[in-house]
Amino acid sequence: MIGPVLPSAGALRPLGLDQVRLTGGFWGERQERNARATIPHAHHWLEETGWLGNFQLAATDDLTPHRRHGREFSDSEVYKLAEAMAWETARGGSAPLDELSTVVAAAQEPGGYLNTMFGRPGQQPRYSDLTWGHELYCYGHLVQAGVARLRGGVRDALTNAAIRAADHVCVEFGPTGRQALCGHPEIEMALVELYRATGTARYLDQARLFLDRRGQATLPDIELGRAYFQDDVPIRERTAFAGHAVRALYLACGAVDVAVETGDDKLLAAVVRQWERTVAARTYLTGGMGSRHEGEAFGDDFELPADRAYIETCAAVASVMLSWRLLLATGEARFADLAERTLYNVVAASTSLDGRAFFYTNPLQQRSPGEALDRSRPWPRASSSERAPWRDVSCCPTNVARTLASLGGYVATEDGGGLQLHQYASGTVTSGDTTLTVATGYPWGGVVRISVDRTGDAPWGLSLRVPAWAGEAQLVTPEGTKRVKPGYTVVSRAWRAGDQIRLKLPVAPRWTEPDPRIDAVRGCAAVERGPLVYCAESVDHDPAVALDAVNVDRAAPVAERPLPALGRDVVALVVDRDRSEPNGDVPPPTTDAAGNGWPYGSHSTADPEPGNVTLVPYHLWANRGPATMRVWLPVAPR
Amino acid sequence: MIGPVLPSAGALRPLGLDQVRLTGGFWGERQERNARATIPHAHHWLEETGWLGNFQLAATDDLTPHRRHGREFSDSEVYKLAEAMAWETARGGSAPLDELSTVVAAAQEPGGYLNTMFGRPGQQPRYSDLTWGHELYCYGHLVQAGVARLRGGVRDALTNAAIRAADHVCVEFGPTGRQALCGHPEIEMALVELYRATGTARYLDQARLFLDRRGQATLPDIELGRAYFQDDVPIRERTAFAGHAVRALYLACGAVDVAVETGDDKLLAAVVRQWERTVAARTYLTGGMGSRHEGEAFGDDFELPADRAYIETCAAVASVMLSWRLLLATGEARFADLAERTLYNVVAASTSLDGRAFFYTNPLQQRSPGEALDRSRPWPRASSSERAPWRDVSCCPTNVARTLASLGGYVATEDGGGLQLHQYASGTVTSGDTTLTVATGYPWGGVVRISVDRTGDAPWGLSLRVPAWAGEAQLVTPEGTKRVKPGYTVVSRAWRAGDQIRLKLPVAPRWTEPDPRIDAVRGCAAVERGPLVYCAESVDHDPAVALDAVNVDRAAPVAERPLPALGRDVVALVVDRDRSEPNGDVPPPTTDAAGNGWPYGSHSTADPEPGNVTLVPYHLWANRGPATMRVWLPVAPR
Repeated sequence: MIGPVLPSAGALRPLGLDQVRLTGGFWGERQERNARATIPHAHHWLEETGWLGNFQLAATDDLTPHRRHGREFSDSEVYKLAEAMAWETARGGSAPLDELSTVVAAAQEPGGYLNTMFGRPGQQPRYSDLTWGHELYCYGHLVQAGVARLRGGVRDALTNAAIRAADHVCVEFGPTGRQALCGHPEIEMALVELYRATGTARYLDQARLFLDRRGQATLPDIELGRAYFQDDVPIRERTAFAGHAVRALYLACGAVDVAVETGDDKLLAAVVRQWERTVAARTYLTGGMGSRHEGEAFGDDFELPADRAYIETCAAVASVMLSWRLLLATGEARFADLAERTLYNVVAASTSLDGRAFFYTNPLQQRSPGEALDRSRPWPRASSSERAPWRDVSCCPTNVARTLASLGGYVATEDGGGLQLHQYASGTVTSGDTTLTVATGYPWGGVVRISVDRTGDAPWGLSLRVPAWAGEAQLVTPEGTKRVKPGYTVVSRAWRAGDQIRLKLPVAPRWTEPDPRIDAVRGCAAVERGPLVYCAESVDHDPAVALDAVNVDRAAPVAERPLPALGRDVVALVVDRDRSEPNGDVPPPTTDAAGNGWPYGSHSTADPEPGNVTLVPYHLWANRGPATMRVWLPVAPR
Repeated sequence: MIGPVLPSAGALRPLGLDQVRLTGGFWGERQERNARATIPHAHHWLEETGWLGNFQLAATDDLTPHRRHGREFSDSEVYKLAEAMAWETARGGSAPLDELSTVVAAAQEPGGYLNTMFGRPGQQPRYSDLTWGHELYCYGHLVQAGVARLRGGVRDALTNAAIRAADHVCVEFGPTGRQALCGHPEIEMALVELYRATGTARYLDQARLFLDRRGQATLPDIELGRAYFQDDVPIRERTAFAGHAVRALYLACGAVDVAVETGDDKLLAAVVRQWERTVAARTYLTGGMGSRHEGEAFGDDFELPADRAYIETCAAVASVMLSWRLLLATGEARFADLAERTLYNVVAASTSLDGRAFFYTNPLQQRSPGEALDRSRPWPRASSSERAPWRDVSCCPTNVARTLASLGGYVATEDGGGLQLHQYASGTVTSGDTTLTVATGYPWGGVVRISVDRTGDAPWGLSLRVPAWAGEAQLVTPEGTKRVKPGYTVVSRAWRAGDQIRLKLPVAPRWTEPDPRIDAVRGCAAVERGPLVYCAESVDHDPAVALDAVNVDRAAPVAERPLPALGRDVVALVVDRDRSEPNGDVPPPTTDAAGNGWPYGSHSTADPEPGNVTLVPYHLWANRGPATMRVWLPVAPR
């Protein structure tokens, strides 16, 4: 079986990406685009920036600090691209990885050490800056790439390099080695997966060791606090995810992996509790996580600003990885619900329609169209109002690439009772003597048709997830039609080839309001449709009318419209108050009693008149030039 | 005349701190506390941290990188303390400065160079890191300290060091010198003031040169963009303050100074326009500036989050410095209005009741009580929910100290027509043959009594500022009583000793609502009373009730209460809905259709029941132990 996460225990066993083939539709098309555009694009930029060249220089002992390019973690981008290529190859695509494997392996030193930033003449010594140096983080990505390659049935220079690096880490940082840890978690889950792929127990032991070492105040008390790297509190004692979001979520993935492989139910329960609190109070409507630019971090409970949301693309990828692990461990639909929300509204949003430009941050409001991007060079900033082809810190494109290439591995599972479908995408699902075909226009349409192409004689159950957003759904089976509630609904029968069932999810537009404790969006509502969050984008509105002046009337009908500029099946929405009426004007500036501009007054400033508002799927915004945007729409008083 | 800003032109001439004596009352007591507690406290910490010791080591050629303490700008703290001591001495207090002067001067090198961070064996070369090295910034503070000393009538080692440093800068960075500028503006206004104090024109020329050089993309395009150090756009072309708030405001001060001294009305008008836009769209209710932790920066228009407000104390000090310069240049009340608001609600808020602990950031909402401070060591973070005795970056305590010591210089002015009172504080005001006594319980009470103790025979006008917040006020003069509007009201007459007038400002509590474009506080209101902004602090409420659950009924009466724990005359407020009724309960968690915690729903979650809410002056919060706090109070729907 081929997949990114193959636990030896847990409620559900994943079906691999060799078993789940996505063909066309929302995700299948994105997988094709990933193969055709994003992977070659990332390869180009790794060459262009010299980040790949660093390995070549390292292999020839020609790598001085002056000649090295990129940040301290740039090696990891090469590894994540290698992982993407490995999955792409394994799912049946073409992404030749031999050259990359050779280049990487040639830079490895005797003993297994491999990093282009440290240890050579003129460079800092190995492991002299574990806080910021990212050496173990980079190994983590190397090992994940190696696991992807191994799972695809290949043993080559890359898999050997990954195993040698892991062996080196187990010696260097083992029980009798350096009692230290990396500033950026990542190696924990990589080591567990390598254990799963090879059966070598010391990788699991080392992962547990790293996990137990963290939270003991080993790393320095920086300006952001040790919470930044989750070294303030042991993960078993934490109550919610905190600090740098990607670090926190990668660590949690490693913790779930260790818990599952060691039968540590208390550790698993601790991560579930943290996930619960985080989802209830520290997660955006899009599923995005990370409220603060400062430290790229989770904020306090209910600190969820729309404009300054960080929502790093990599944190969304990490959240999907975590939800998948928790789903496999527990079998609970809530984890698949969050994964769906995050995939459609952050992971999908991160990439441009052409697959060659990427968001790093994914805010829910863009107040100004921002600086024009120079597309000929890496963009120096994390934030931008348009997607950038590459960045000085460019962790997100390769992270999305490896996720999309392996997405088939995040769709379906099996257990003793049958098969479970967690995400709905057109394609085929095979397990043993059973093959299903899934046909759906989801998320644009709500109907999911599942045909049994072949199966054995014994009865088994097919579990279908009804997302919580649906409230309820209609299920049509050979036995008849019924209303089904959120969670998994199981259809158990002696299936025969030719059987069909149909799930109808209600994808009509719906208004969503925030918990009153989320101060940042008080008095606003958002529109969702199916799993998609919508937003107002300035390009659809009178250019004289800033989105500052948007004010919606919740009593107005919400009409659906095609929007071919953004895709064949795309559904846009119009809060259709009265077509003959223009949008409200920009409100006049507020003044003080002396007539000077001052945005606070004794009497409520009149809200702008509500008008028509066009909404587009959030994941498609910023594909039509610089724009302002907002997900949360101020609601006119009734 | 003794004062921090003595322009040679402009609408108004400042009265010096030798002419305006504050005696008791809100600001007089804070000046005494500053002299008694804050200045010695800062001196202690400068010794404790070794930042003062750096100069002693430098003087003995014993300063290696290993032995130097503090950040790259730590020299400036010594200079700001010296400036505070100079003003304190000049206003008649006792703050012996000789030792500090000697220590500083002894570290100066031949040629005038002076910085403990650069140029010695093992250190980076002089001016090798102008972007981050702060060498010119430090000179700026040295020169301001020197000017304070010169204005106090002393020429000593410190004044000589300041002049030698300024001369060195004019050679090194002059028209034929390095065509470079410092990452942190500050030296511009310092050089203009030295020009004013000495008459040496090249200091003014050099200041103008630095000003004109900035905005030409000389500094690097860092992750935060060149806007961080205002090097993205020339100040003449800018439309609003942007980037690092202290940098932006210090630069604007220098620009006003250059404009006034060179008669550059266009430059002055450019700064006024930027101030207007900034006040109308980028300023907090407290007068605080700086919306982002990332880059300690201004945000976009209407990006004014309460919880993540940065509002650095130093930015408030800088804003008061700027408002004062603009007031002197234009004579317009709006600048004095903002200065008043900022002094009462940020500068006063920054310091603990005992004068020995300080906020660096001054947010309008504190969501959690935060980490307990270790008071025995400098606090490593900018933010804290309690004031810290000192910080690794400790720019604010000495900045407040120099401001309070010179505060008499920010109160009153004169022009051809008479005297102007801009801020109301008990004390005496003298100009020529005129002396006034001001007696007031302001801001707790709204009555300001002004007595003419002596004056000449010629008639003159006394201008009194009616703040915009007042709406209108009552003025009682020998001619009778009248209602007066915001702005300056002038009482012109042939004054005689014994004349009295009385201004009655309406300090009843009032509700204030935000501009609807300030998304972060939509649906909320705040309470102000006189110039003071109020807040709800958790220590005044049932500990079981989080401030999350506060919800105010604007129809309820707002009652005044004494609060002796925070000071003799302090007025607390109670939004008194019904004394027998408890506060609302914490709202239940929001869930999705499957019953899982998810803070977004199809139907509006019930707001908590409005209850009694106690409010304290914002500047006094966090003096009663760790607490949560909020200025903006959600308003219950009517």
